Amino acid sequence: MSKTVITAEPGVPQVIITRDFDAPRDLVFRAHTDPHLLVQWLGPRDLTMTIDCYDVRNGGTWRYVHQDAKGHEYGFHGVFHGTPSPDAIVATFEFEGAPGHVKLDTTTFEQRGGTTLMRTISSFQSVQDRDAMVASGMERGVRDSGERLEELLARLEAR
Amino acid sequence: MSKTVITAEPGVPQVIITRDFDAPRDLVFRAHTDPHLLVQWLGPRDLTMTIDCYDVRNGGTWRYVHQDAKGHEYGFHGVFHGTPSPDAIVATFEFEGAPGHVKLDTTTFEQRGGTTLMRTISSFQSVQDRDAMVASGMERGVRDSGERLEELLARLEAR
Repeated sequence: MSKTVITAEPGVPQVIITRDFDAPRDLVFRAHTDPHLLVQWLGPRDLTMTIDCYDVRNGGTWRYVHQDAKGHEYGFHGVFHGTPSPDAIVATFEFEGAPGHVKLDTTTFEQRGGTTLMRTISSFQSVQDRDAMVASGMERGVRDSGERLEELLARLEAR
Repeated sequence: MSKTVITAEPGVPQVIITRDFDAPRDLVFRAHTDPHLLVQWLGPRDLTMTIDCYDVRNGGTWRYVHQDAKGHEYGFHGVFHGTPSPDAIVATFEFEGAPGHVKLDTTTFEQRGGTTLMRTISSFQSVQDRDAMVASGMERGVRDSGERLEELLARLEAR
């Protein structure tokens, strides 16, 4: 399958992430909204994820914590905007280590024959905020997540 | 006082609105967070505003309705992100006539001698969304709001 593509154009306060998955649209969507599946793929491989809440509905809040081998915790939270569906999951995203810095994520799932194109558009408050997140090592987490999700989908499809 | 300045650069999914007010920072902030004041200035002059809820706290929701002379209603709602303060009010914004289209607004208040520079950065999901909002007549509402707020602040200062 294709690898994750991360686009961050100069001067535009957005990051666009796309990846094609060899799985049906509904399954890729479910992997994004079922906490039992999400916890198996989201984030860098060397961190452990704990989901505090994941209330997948219009106005619902979500929060999770990533923990490294030394016990350091990194909390993230946000709010779903609109009812999440395969057409779009719209949610805000805040890293609790940088209060006041918020991004707005829109993830869509497009069936293309046997594969599903996932696309996430992250809109930031400023290009500086966008660049800070890119510099923080976002890319490793995004690439690990894509690979881990591909592996999870293969396991689910093999059942 | 200076007029409202609206900036919408080509290719950048943001709108930046600035206006200088002849009033102290705390008062301009209060006019943005006290529903009794907000209802007196927000929106075009020919619409009537009704605030449904305005829960000014981290995670709090807000909703208001603008009604025109013919009784047509335009609802808007969103969620505050972080505790609103004169340093920043961060909130999402959705027009209920276009579900799924969300913007993220960051409003700051900078004291400059006797005046306060208000700046709102609106981040959209796409340039198309930004252009659609600009085309919808946003400018009239923004300019009316700025003038009405200036008038309200003058009345409050004269007390």
